[in-house]
Amino acid sequence: MAQYRTFTAADAIQYARQHVGWDDASALVDAQEVGDGNLNLVFRIVDHQGVSRVVVKQALPYVRCVGESWPLTLDRARLEAETLRAHSQHCAEHTVKILHHDPQLAVMVMEDLSSLHIWRRELVQGRYYPQAAAQLGHYLAHTLFHTSDFWLHPHEKKAQVVRFINPEMCEITEDLFFNDPYQKHQRNRYPSELEDTVALLRNDDQLRTAVAALKHRFFSQAEALLHGDLHSGSIFIGEGQLKVIDAEFGFYGPIGFDVGTAIGNLLLNYCGLAGLLPPREAAEARELRLQDVKIVWRQFEHQFLTLAVEKTNDDALAWSGYAPLFLQKVLADAIGYCGTELIRRTVGMAHVADLDTIRDDAMRSACIAQAIHLGKALILAAPHVAHVNDFIARIRQYG
Amino acid sequence: MAQYRTFTAADAIQYARQHVGWDDASALVDAQEVGDGNLNLVFRIVDHQGVSRVVVKQALPYVRCVGESWPLTLDRARLEAETLRAHSQHCAEHTVKILHHDPQLAVMVMEDLSSLHIWRRELVQGRYYPQAAAQLGHYLAHTLFHTSDFWLHPHEKKAQVVRFINPEMCEITEDLFFNDPYQKHQRNRYPSELEDTVALLRNDDQLRTAVAALKHRFFSQAEALLHGDLHSGSIFIGEGQLKVIDAEFGFYGPIGFDVGTAIGNLLLNYCGLAGLLPPREAAEARELRLQDVKIVWRQFEHQFLTLAVEKTNDDALAWSGYAPLFLQKVLADAIGYCGTELIRRTVGMAHVADLDTIRDDAMRSACIAQAIHLGKALILAAPHVAHVNDFIARIRQYG
Repeated sequence: MAQYRTFTAADAIQYARQHVGWDDASALVDAQEVGDGNLNLVFRIVDHQGVSRVVVKQALPYVRCVGESWPLTLDRARLEAETLRAHSQHCAEHTVKILHHDPQLAVMVMEDLSSLHIWRRELVQGRYYPQAAAQLGHYLAHTLFHTSDFWLHPHEKKAQVVRFINPEMCEITEDLFFNDPYQKHQRNRYPSELEDTVALLRNDDQLRTAVAALKHRFFSQAEALLHGDLHSGSIFIGEGQLKVIDAEFGFYGPIGFDVGTAIGNLLLNYCGLAGLLPPREAAEARELRLQDVKIVWRQFEHQFLTLAVEKTNDDALAWSGYAPLFLQKVLADAIGYCGTELIRRTVGMAHVADLDTIRDDAMRSACIAQAIHLGKALILAAPHVAHVNDFIARIRQYG
Repeated sequence: MAQYRTFTAADAIQYARQHVGWDDASALVDAQEVGDGNLNLVFRIVDHQGVSRVVVKQALPYVRCVGESWPLTLDRARLEAETLRAHSQHCAEHTVKILHHDPQLAVMVMEDLSSLHIWRRELVQGRYYPQAAAQLGHYLAHTLFHTSDFWLHPHEKKAQVVRFINPEMCEITEDLFFNDPYQKHQRNRYPSELEDTVALLRNDDQLRTAVAALKHRFFSQAEALLHGDLHSGSIFIGEGQLKVIDAEFGFYGPIGFDVGTAIGNLLLNYCGLAGLLPPREAAEARELRLQDVKIVWRQFEHQFLTLAVEKTNDDALAWSGYAPLFLQKVLADAIGYCGTELIRRTVGMAHVADLDTIRDDAMRSACIAQAIHLGKALILAAPHVAHVNDFIARIRQYG
């Protein structure tokens, strides 16, 4: 077993050659460090023609954007690789392929996706991928169903819960999603003119109670192996293709969290469009985003129900009335978590390009304010929404 | 580390002498095997005067009442000892004291409680302990609060979930509570004249859906370290005293399961009283049982809320509106699990003396039928009951 050391570009090339498992591995000759995230080194390993062939990703023992003062477990590399492999087993078409991983080095070698594009960048540019929403719904249904109590033997499910216990990464979510935006905290970042709007979040009894309930469910409801951070920056997209990456937040949690985070990022884009595109294009794109949200949910719901009918292994959960009832609970959870994603991406530490790249200051503030209002309205409405059409109606009403 | 071997009485005496930690351990001279359960050897170790001084309990590697054909993990002895120790940390006054335990031998040495009485036997005899219900509520509040996300640091909570993963014992509950009574199964046992009543359980869409939801929550909701089998046969009682034993089903599950199982056993007694006591005494005892149910819930609720206000460590869960909202969910869960306890103890494999010892056949059948009807009504009503008074009203209506 190799001891942990931080990779240089040369290390990454050599490591890729050793572990990629190709006959022509010697064609890998150069590396470009492209990690734009906060937590990791990411090398694209290229051939003689400068074509990217494979990616080497290594976890750093601290939060990259903050520095060594915020240490972070290297075990997240194992959790990421094992989550992606588990999801790939059931949805290979939409999960990045892991070719090799080493828990000691906190490194993995994975398929190159440079022919595709980060979905968030495309959404910011106003580029539409008509199949993306349905593919995302498919991914959610297949990864979550097959890691749930519907599918796994109870012994295997419990062993998986243990394997994917992820205290340090969960703590980041626990703090950034459910604490920081609802109190004064030095990590929060929002336009100063929204101080009054943000201050209202701190003293709203119903809101704080609802956020506590969402956090408690995040803490305690081990329904399926979640991706745990399914935003549009963790999704590569191309014509007819969609691939999910970056699963270091993987753990057993409430299914609605993954669904809600994904939809929340579509709605962050929805809120930003007025500042990103000219008025008519923005209006059209907003309609497409609402359609995307509806399709994500409908595809997820349809496929989860189909899988439940065809493949549920548990005698009790197989009763025909149960999966539809459970999905109502998932919809309510998803709407709530979607609301917390809107708020933590506007008031909290980690922001999104859909809002931050709006050039006009007043417009940017207005879009951010809209996202906060929509987030709050969704958190409060969540327990009362029984159908996706009602969800869409509420987005139109508050967004 | 000692290798596992099944203890003889002589082994038990010697072991107690070694591990009891008393100066006068040599006074332990004889052993009586008193295990009336299904899973373990239980020795009372007595002194020269024949006074029981300490108990040695050893897990057998199979289900005792079935035989070696049904093997069962010895790890349950570790789980039992560690659950009791964890509960004792927060509610020593109502948890049996563990003096020593050895996971390899699957054995533990614990305080003798032979001056007390098994609560079920007392309930069957119509003997009333006015403090018992409040003490049970106290035990539930303190053990469950202090092992929950309200109290534990999130890292510690996750470590505890792992430590108390209990697949084999949970599987017994998963099968006996949530599967067997709702299908034809050779383990089921009920009076043949109730065949029509039992058959109705198998085809009731709302009931099967509700039972699936309860099973799913049992599978997935790691809210607190449960006792896991909190029936009146696992509770010793005396004047002003109450001690809980037998925690081999301990695991992280939904708080309502422990509360509901405990209340369910009071209601099994409620249903049996007409066959156990003369009419007037039975009527009085039934009122006392309803009062007990109300006190168990009220005391649990009051103390959990008080602990939540005074001691919640999590910033988000500490919001004042949240604990009351959560306890509404716990009440609904408790009523549902209470219903499943009533049905599994009448239709399923494991029965209770509160019903089985009724001498008159017709009366016994009538009492069992009442328990089944009440169980079914409670499972269906559970999501709609918002207050303990409404719970009591429904017991009067259906029981």
